[in-house]
Amino acid sequence: MNTTLVSELYEQIDAMPIVDIHTHVNWKAPTARHIGDILSYHYYTELVNSAAFREDPFPFDDPQQLTRDIVGSLHHIRHTVQYDWLMSISHEFLGIAPWEWTPENANAIMARSVEVMGSDSWFEELIAQAGIERVYLTNQYDDDLEGLDSSFFTPCLRIEPFVLDILRAQARERMGAVLGRPITTTNDVAALVEQTFRRFMAHGMGYAAISSPAGLRTFAVSDQDAQRILTRAIEGAELDDSDRRTWAAYAMARIADACRAHRRPFHLMIGVNRDVYAHGVPSGTDLFDSVNSMRGYDWLLNAYPDVQFPTAVLADTTGLELVAAAWIRHNVYPSGHWWYANQPTEIARELRRRLDTVPSTKLIGYFSDAYYLEFILPKFRMFKFELAAALAERMERSTIHPNMTSFSLDDALDLAYAMLVENPIQIVGPAH
Amino acid sequence: MNTTLVSELYEQIDAMPIVDIHTHVNWKAPTARHIGDILSYHYYTELVNSAAFREDPFPFDDPQQLTRDIVGSLHHIRHTVQYDWLMSISHEFLGIAPWEWTPENANAIMARSVEVMGSDSWFEELIAQAGIERVYLTNQYDDDLEGLDSSFFTPCLRIEPFVLDILRAQARERMGAVLGRPITTTNDVAALVEQTFRRFMAHGMGYAAISSPAGLRTFAVSDQDAQRILTRAIEGAELDDSDRRTWAAYAMARIADACRAHRRPFHLMIGVNRDVYAHGVPSGTDLFDSVNSMRGYDWLLNAYPDVQFPTAVLADTTGLELVAAAWIRHNVYPSGHWWYANQPTEIARELRRRLDTVPSTKLIGYFSDAYYLEFILPKFRMFKFELAAALAERMERSTIHPNMTSFSLDDALDLAYAMLVENPIQIVGPAH
Amino acid sequence: MNTTLVSELYEQIDAMPIVDIHTHVNWKAPTARHIGDILSYHYYTELVNSAAFREDPFPFDDPQQLTRDIVGSLHHIRHTVQYDWLMSISHEFLGIAPWEWTPENANAIMARSVEVMGSDSWFEELIAQAGIERVYLTNQYDDDLEGLDSSFFTPCLRIEPFVLDILRAQARERMGAVLGRPITTTNDVAALVEQTFRRFMAHGMGYAAISSPAGLRTFAVSDQDAQRILTRAIEGAELDDSDRRTWAAYAMARIADACRAHRRPFHLMIGVNRDVYAHGVPSGTDLFDSVNSMRGYDWLLNAYPDVQFPTAVLADTTGLELVAAAWIRHNVYPSGHWWYANQPTEIARELRRRLDTVPSTKLIGYFSDAYYLEFILPKFRMFKFELAAALAERMERSTIHPNMTSFSLDDALDLAYAMLVENPIQIVGPAH
Repeated sequence: MNTTLVSELYEQIDAMPIVDIHTHVNWKAPTARHIGDILSYHYYTELVNSAAFREDPFPFDDPQQLTRDIVGSLHHIRHTVQYDWLMSISHEFLGIAPWEWTPENANAIMARSVEVMGSDSWFEELIAQAGIERVYLTNQYDDDLEGLDSSFFTPCLRIEPFVLDILRAQARERMGAVLGRPITTTNDVAALVEQTFRRFMAHGMGYAAISSPAGLRTFAVSDQDAQRILTRAIEGAELDDSDRRTWAAYAMARIADACRAHRRPFHLMIGVNRDVYAHGVPSGTDLFDSVNSMRGYDWLLNAYPDVQFPTAVLADTTGLELVAAAWIRHNVYPSGHWWYANQPTEIARELRRRLDTVPSTKLIGYFSDAYYLEFILPKFRMFKFELAAALAERMERSTIHPNMTSFSLDDALDLAYAMLVENPIQIVGPAH
Repeated sequence: MNTTLVSELYEQIDAMPIVDIHTHVNWKAPTARHIGDILSYHYYTELVNSAAFREDPFPFDDPQQLTRDIVGSLHHIRHTVQYDWLMSISHEFLGIAPWEWTPENANAIMARSVEVMGSDSWFEELIAQAGIERVYLTNQYDDDLEGLDSSFFTPCLRIEPFVLDILRAQARERMGAVLGRPITTTNDVAALVEQTFRRFMAHGMGYAAISSPAGLRTFAVSDQDAQRILTRAIEGAELDDSDRRTWAAYAMARIADACRAHRRPFHLMIGVNRDVYAHGVPSGTDLFDSVNSMRGYDWLLNAYPDVQFPTAVLADTTGLELVAAAWIRHNVYPSGHWWYANQPTEIARELRRRLDTVPSTKLIGYFSDAYYLEFILPKFRMFKFELAAALAERMERSTIHPNMTSFSLDDALDLAYAMLVENPIQIVGPAH
Repeated sequence: MNTTLVSELYEQIDAMPIVDIHTHVNWKAPTARHIGDILSYHYYTELVNSAAFREDPFPFDDPQQLTRDIVGSLHHIRHTVQYDWLMSISHEFLGIAPWEWTPENANAIMARSVEVMGSDSWFEELIAQAGIERVYLTNQYDDDLEGLDSSFFTPCLRIEPFVLDILRAQARERMGAVLGRPITTTNDVAALVEQTFRRFMAHGMGYAAISSPAGLRTFAVSDQDAQRILTRAIEGAELDDSDRRTWAAYAMARIADACRAHRRPFHLMIGVNRDVYAHGVPSGTDLFDSVNSMRGYDWLLNAYPDVQFPTAVLADTTGLELVAAAWIRHNVYPSGHWWYANQPTEIARELRRRLDTVPSTKLIGYFSDAYYLEFILPKFRMFKFELAAALAERMERSTIHPNMTSFSLDDALDLAYAMLVENPIQIVGPAH
């Protein structure tokens, strides 16, 4: 690694504004209140639970105790990237150095965090310090969006309720309450989707999104077939896997219809298996399946050539499939590095694959997946460092590669800016 | 990267002659006529279509316009390896520098290309300049081979018609016309295969080859079972997937029989999914499936221990399977880096795996898959650079590795020469 | 690569004692008698067979001839890591330099090896020179353990007979002979398992272990269902795949019961396909399937939260699944780098993934899988070199990474020591 060149590149990339196209930030409470909120992030609770299993749940209601518990176990994960994120938050925002993270200091760290994060101006200070320009949200169809500042936040509609949950009575009831009448027909579903899109559009909608299970397949399903399944669900009949798969394929197409009608992208996040680990912490029970491919999405991607599909994949085994899809399919855009693939080893590989073969205008560099705005900076830094390393390598190669002409610092920075700022705005920029 | 050492190695590897064991070159028109032919290569049309989708087809009949169209979109792919190939062609053969590739210069580039490529001596100049010693072709069973210069071109028989297409009436009719009688029995099929092999052998046949779909399986199938399926196909009966799979397994064995009888290798190219992308340019509609393994070939590889199987895989997920197969199976030879895996990230990984664990005499370094001879040089350069990088790394490691003795420059060059020249000739050298 | 730093790290890591948690060493004859034993290791016979196929078996009964045969073919594999292991053995233990490995010297090499390895003190000298502190064994349920020195050797129970073989009459007969009565009920199976665990515990048992086939799935199976299958097997009825899968799931749980009762770990080695290559040398006929996932183990890992599951995977495609499992599951421990994945390319990738995201206390660095103690040193050196390279890279990165504070030489060595010595003892330390 040419550390001088990587540092030079990193410094300039770090100065670029952050457009974060996927987070779980709550726009009504976007920042942490204290270090307990930060440490309640499942990346910490799950690692501590993994390193030193506890039968009892973490004391989420007692942030002081939670902080003491987590801090007391941090030595197990001091070499991880997740720990590095925490240290960046600590150092950058709280002015607390890594060596101060001792069990004895847990209360002092809490106190300092309340002091900083409890300030009325914290939100403004934080986004200024981190250079965050726009933050995309993850919203349910019935989320309250009144008062949302759409010059900064961009709501995005999570569609799992329509695709996966609707066959359960409880989910339908909640939907019926929003629609104003019971969900009994496919038209009712379409009406709720349309009503939801309109409401989101009024608040500068980003995109529709799903984190889909391994094995999901899309294919043409008639309204009649879908209605039959919905009716049977309403009647309380037992549905089998084939019914569920058929409904899911039907609903994916109806969402794509709405995306087409409202000219909004459909963000695919492919391949999570929910609720796999029986003894996990909250949000720490999901895994993925290495046996999964993008073939299940062929029908959808072909049937909606006028809809844009930014796509993230969870399994490393799907990485080259995504690259190949983005390479030839005009409506597939590789999007960030998701979850278990959101660490340096996978990022480094996927970055090089994408940079070498996919049009530069199609690459969405990164999203943080953050729950609090504080995490955006350290996560983007992790990505930006890998990007700087990849670009430095390319610059170095270009000096001796028989097929390449000079790849200059400016070329590298242009590419980084396209991936981090221009493309996100161009591809998933908010509705006006 | 030790750029000095990589450059030194590269320079010597670059000087080695090129034996290109798989191309799609047309021996009757092996070179491009002008830059329009070069730009019509699907690697450019598909990337431009991917970056900026066009409903209308490219003007393949109007090379001037095609050139203007592609040149106008090149800025989207300026960072890709495909662009680098183009720039090598431009610089090496046309004397046109990268900065001259502007829309304004499109006509001038065309004119210059006609001047160079239209010369009567272009073929000779090109192969001398690129150091191309032998080029393997991709031929259909009914291709005309009369007049082929077998001191330079080596015909290779594509067997998809026998394995996949023959169950369609139109394909059988074409075969019947070549055989001189309708294809009605498995004996007719064997007769056509034998007749074809004999014809190819007379022209210095290389090998039989298939690019097989994900999920293909080989197993023993009786002549009776195969005949039943063929008869039903002739009668116009509907065939199901099981029928098609059974026929494919049968036909693979019959081809292997012919390879055995004529002592020719059987080149496997595993895992393409054809016609997946509905809106693609010609030759730009195929993808692959990450869920695919080499297990389907176990029967074939075991049943024909006396047949050599050079093997390329499309999915990165099959890369280590291929390495393991070549490591223990005496008749499996890792062959090049194919299509979506033909880029630096995959090449670098597979190269290291192969170099570390597979006997050196079994490695076929590279093939270009080119449609025009002009592409052979830049594609081989891409590979040779990765090879130089891998060998330089090995030399550097050997100076401090506790298990290794010195891996010298000569050792590195010997290994490169084996992979690029000796092994290709030894394993798939043309029939005499 | 910073060769100075890597060397400095390697030197200190090399000085750490070796705790080898998985070998196939025979405790009654743990060292080779001569170089013929070393060269009979399937890593050499299979590579030589792969490079130059021989219809006839190797002359395993004539070590002199075997040595001549292998030495005569070593030039085909001189660039492989397997060759490098051999050269380390040769140089370190026999004082024979690589350049002396010529066919002419085969007899002299044999003579020298007899001189060294035939010495009465060879075992003591070898483990002193190699720094081997403890060696885990692979034992069948009926292996004789009387006289085993449990201060050095740790017996581990291979459970394939209970899970896979027991449905065959011959396997049941052998089991019945050990149990003292025929195996006719699930209780008999449980009794034999319990008797076996007790006997192993008396000799400082390490763990129960299985190398499981691709596609194995665990799920709850009732005693009644299992008994039905066992009864049908005893009656000689034909069993289908579903029966075999159900029995395997049942037996996996019964082994986990015994692990729970005796507080012993259950070592999973996931994904081998046995007897795939029909023309292979002994132990050189197995491969793996890239299409395989850890999902089949979800039930087992959830149902036995109090059992520790060190886990190795054979397919590279399962690597990130293992990392993710170890990241959130408290009872999954990534264990070494197995077989076809036991080479630098896979080790380098998996190491970085694991170091970046899994608690440091959960990482079992390496095991040798050796058949003779002589192989332990070169194999551990291969791993230790990759570990030194990964840690050096991390140290270098930490100097410029925006999220990292200094990762010092001491930090690196602490991590290495945890992976190589502390964790193995902590996680799979022998029973007392």
